[in-house]
Amino acid sequence: MSDDTGEGEPESGADGAPEDADARTAALEAITERVLERISPDDVERATMHAAAEELLARATAAATDRCPDADVVQVGSTARDTWISGDRDIDVFVRFPPSLDRETLETYGLEVGHETLPEGHEEYAEHPYVTGEYDGFDVDVVPCFRLEAATDIRSAVDRTPFHNRYLEARLDGETADDVRLAKQFLKAIGAYGSNLRTEGFSGYLTELLVVEYGGFRPLLEAAADWHPPVELDPEDHGRARETSSSRNGADGDYPFDDPLVVIDPTDPERNVAAVCSAANVARFQHYAREVLESPRIDLFEPDEPEPLGPDELAAHLDRRETTPIAIRFDAPALVDDQLYPQLQKSLDGVVSGLDRREFDVLRAETFADASAVLFVELAVAERPAVERHEGPPVHVRGHAEGFHDAYADDETVYGPFIDGDRYVVERGRDFTDAISFLESDRLLDVGLGAHVETALEDEYEVLVGSDVSALLEEFGAALRAYFEPTP
Amino acid sequence: MSDDTGEGEPESGADGAPEDADARTAALEAITERVLERISPDDVERATMHAAAEELLARATAAATDRCPDADVVQVGSTARDTWISGDRDIDVFVRFPPSLDRETLETYGLEVGHETLPEGHEEYAEHPYVTGEYDGFDVDVVPCFRLEAATDIRSAVDRTPFHNRYLEARLDGETADDVRLAKQFLKAIGAYGSNLRTEGFSGYLTELLVVEYGGFRPLLEAAADWHPPVELDPEDHGRARETSSSRNGADGDYPFDDPLVVIDPTDPERNVAAVCSAANVARFQHYAREVLESPRIDLFEPDEPEPLGPDELAAHLDRRETTPIAIRFDAPALVDDQLYPQLQKSLDGVVSGLDRREFDVLRAETFADASAVLFVELAVAERPAVERHEGPPVHVRGHAEGFHDAYADDETVYGPFIDGDRYVVERGRDFTDAISFLESDRLLDVGLGAHVETALEDEYEVLVGSDVSALLEEFGAALRAYFEPTP
Repeated sequence: MSDDTGEGEPESGADGAPEDADARTAALEAITERVLERISPDDVERATMHAAAEELLARATAAATDRCPDADVVQVGSTARDTWISGDRDIDVFVRFPPSLDRETLETYGLEVGHETLPEGHEEYAEHPYVTGEYDGFDVDVVPCFRLEAATDIRSAVDRTPFHNRYLEARLDGETADDVRLAKQFLKAIGAYGSNLRTEGFSGYLTELLVVEYGGFRPLLEAAADWHPPVELDPEDHGRARETSSSRNGADGDYPFDDPLVVIDPTDPERNVAAVCSAANVARFQHYAREVLESPRIDLFEPDEPEPLGPDELAAHLDRRETTPIAIRFDAPALVDDQLYPQLQKSLDGVVSGLDRREFDVLRAETFADASAVLFVELAVAERPAVERHEGPPVHVRGHAEGFHDAYADDETVYGPFIDGDRYVVERGRDFTDAISFLESDRLLDVGLGAHVETALEDEYEVLVGSDVSALLEEFGAALRAYFEPTP
Repeated sequence: MSDDTGEGEPESGADGAPEDADARTAALEAITERVLERISPDDVERATMHAAAEELLARATAAATDRCPDADVVQVGSTARDTWISGDRDIDVFVRFPPSLDRETLETYGLEVGHETLPEGHEEYAEHPYVTGEYDGFDVDVVPCFRLEAATDIRSAVDRTPFHNRYLEARLDGETADDVRLAKQFLKAIGAYGSNLRTEGFSGYLTELLVVEYGGFRPLLEAAADWHPPVELDPEDHGRARETSSSRNGADGDYPFDDPLVVIDPTDPERNVAAVCSAANVARFQHYAREVLESPRIDLFEPDEPEPLGPDELAAHLDRRETTPIAIRFDAPALVDDQLYPQLQKSLDGVVSGLDRREFDVLRAETFADASAVLFVELAVAERPAVERHEGPPVHVRGHAEGFHDAYADDETVYGPFIDGDRYVVERGRDFTDAISFLESDRLLDVGLGAHVETALEDEYEVLVGSDVSALLEEFGAALRAYFEPTP
């Protein structure tokens, strides 16, 4: 079995990397072929999906037209467009009502249609409520929306989805669909796939647009390897329309987006499809695009699931690094990931600023969440002396300078005021001479935490320091390996 | 005796400070009267000085005209202008030769005249060699110079002195001379008097110009209290001349000086008389000017000679501050102060930068010199962990980014490369995890030391840390009190 792995691959150099450009091209082709074999749904999977979708669409259509003769039903998403990866089992059914319907009725009808389509389903809430459930092994969403003339008329984000579907369907063929699958698999493997607010990566729609725009997976890789953010793509040339229009806000004809990657939605010139994609994920994609072009390897298409870090490994890292790791641990607020992770990130930023402001130097920081949530900060400096320098105004700014001087002149607890350069300076006592006291104090609640994190911390939290952070290993062993063995 | 101290002084509030403006004016007048009584030379001192000066001028004139009939002799300096402070005993005799004389002959004649004037004197070297010695209790310099038409024609700095003397003599009367004495005494008391490169303060000539320009000591104080540096004074209105001239470099008609205090030399438009005066000394003068106007007190005219700090006091300060004081001590290079102190300051700046660059945070630093010299740094952070963050280029700067990545990708000693924002980052080992190892290493010699300090350190130095800095108390007790009990 494993003896076969190398068969059919082109020559490789001593380190396994192909030696010239042609060989690399061939090697990448050979590898993507093997990847496709694994990630393309086979005939059975396709037939099962089509059968399931047909049944669901029929049910939804019957239930919808019963209530509103003018309604219709469309399947959207990667299973509709044949761009799904084998094993992904999402079927998205969109029930479109005419815009004349009032929103309340739409929501009522939408839920009724959902329940008739998925008798075992339950309700969830996005911009509209909708029904989600399982059918024949597939995860199914039945989502009501308005059927509009143009995507720019939408009333909520879900109304846009059918437009996306129509735009892509017209531009995808079998080969392009395979390239979309490769791109998705590649982005998954490098951890940059998904527009949720935890990943802040590439959405499925964005990935499909990029493959369509660049004309394939390999051209996309080659382009990305040379990107100079901000990268601006505008498939439908909306920018030109904007430039000649007086009503838009694009200064100097530039796109009015401040993101590293800007892809103007073909169905809506006002929207950057890549708005969620972080600078780090753009950089990550660039890094791995270069790597897979230079040294095509199948493992670059395989998501890395790190083994949990062991206690001895953790201890060895802490010994080697000589830093002070500190974990603030508390019960994870009961929020969906798209709310939880932004709050955790905001809280982590607040804690880092609070430490910085007190001159406790943070080397690196990360947040983890499962049943508990953790704000993890690794300090280069966890203690400061009793006094700190406090600069006053220049002596020549008379009013302020006299105020500063008089405030401290008779204060026995400070050194000074004295003069340094043109300013008054005092050396005064610190509120906190060690970071742990600060993190254990009420002042932690002032650093600008996410609202639900603040509530959780007000309730209870623990501060783990140094080797005590090993208590995190049971819940966050894999995350800690990723932290202590960081890769691009 | 001491019961008389308060007599004749105006009413005071509970804290001893006069309560209204008139009372303050009267109090300052009463105090300056008492100060003048102490610092004005009495008739005996004046007579002694005049007798000594007369004899010295006669000797010098005879010796000079013997060699060069066209030579003449002038007395310059504060004893010549009656602006000296009782107890100052400097007599400056300038021997002026015609500009037709060649420099070598001038120097020969100058030394011969000096030796005939001061048979016990010895030679020293400024721009010209000159003879210095004692006569009847006075410190006498006999300095040769060229007698020129204008100060702008000068060949060396000493040629300018007679012009300064003439300018001031024409503008000083008895009352102004008293105000000059008060200003000098005040600047001495606050530690801002003297244009040597240790003090970087107000020269005698500058002080006299300021008093003349503002019309007295009190007007000078009132102006200084409100100064907004850069302060620009131009007694002879040279700036206007410069503005209308096409040959000068003053952009926008501004003075071409980048100093906090600019006083254009009345005898030379190209020269800022206050060039040496540091921002700190300008600020110091402003601070104490406000203080003496607000709360006139005689002690503001009395130089503070700090008692040496005791071992227990030092220990108490170190306990209270919790910092890490470090002294680099070595044999003081055999240089005059005007060369030594700039070199020590440069060396101290270099050491502070070297520590900063390695992230050892310096709270304050100072330099001391006597038989030994000391670079004293007080650290807030003296240790760092084994690893440090090292930021690479943005990933999109492809050439640099690939170079950085490849340099570290297989380096087992670093963490990463990983991606943070749009950049590659590694965490690598530090060269020095504690400041002392750095200061004890050869790398100390790379920080940009003064030349003679570098030579001294190459030879030998010791590093005193923490409570061991008490070894400095014997030689630098007073300086250490000034350091640990800082005042404006």
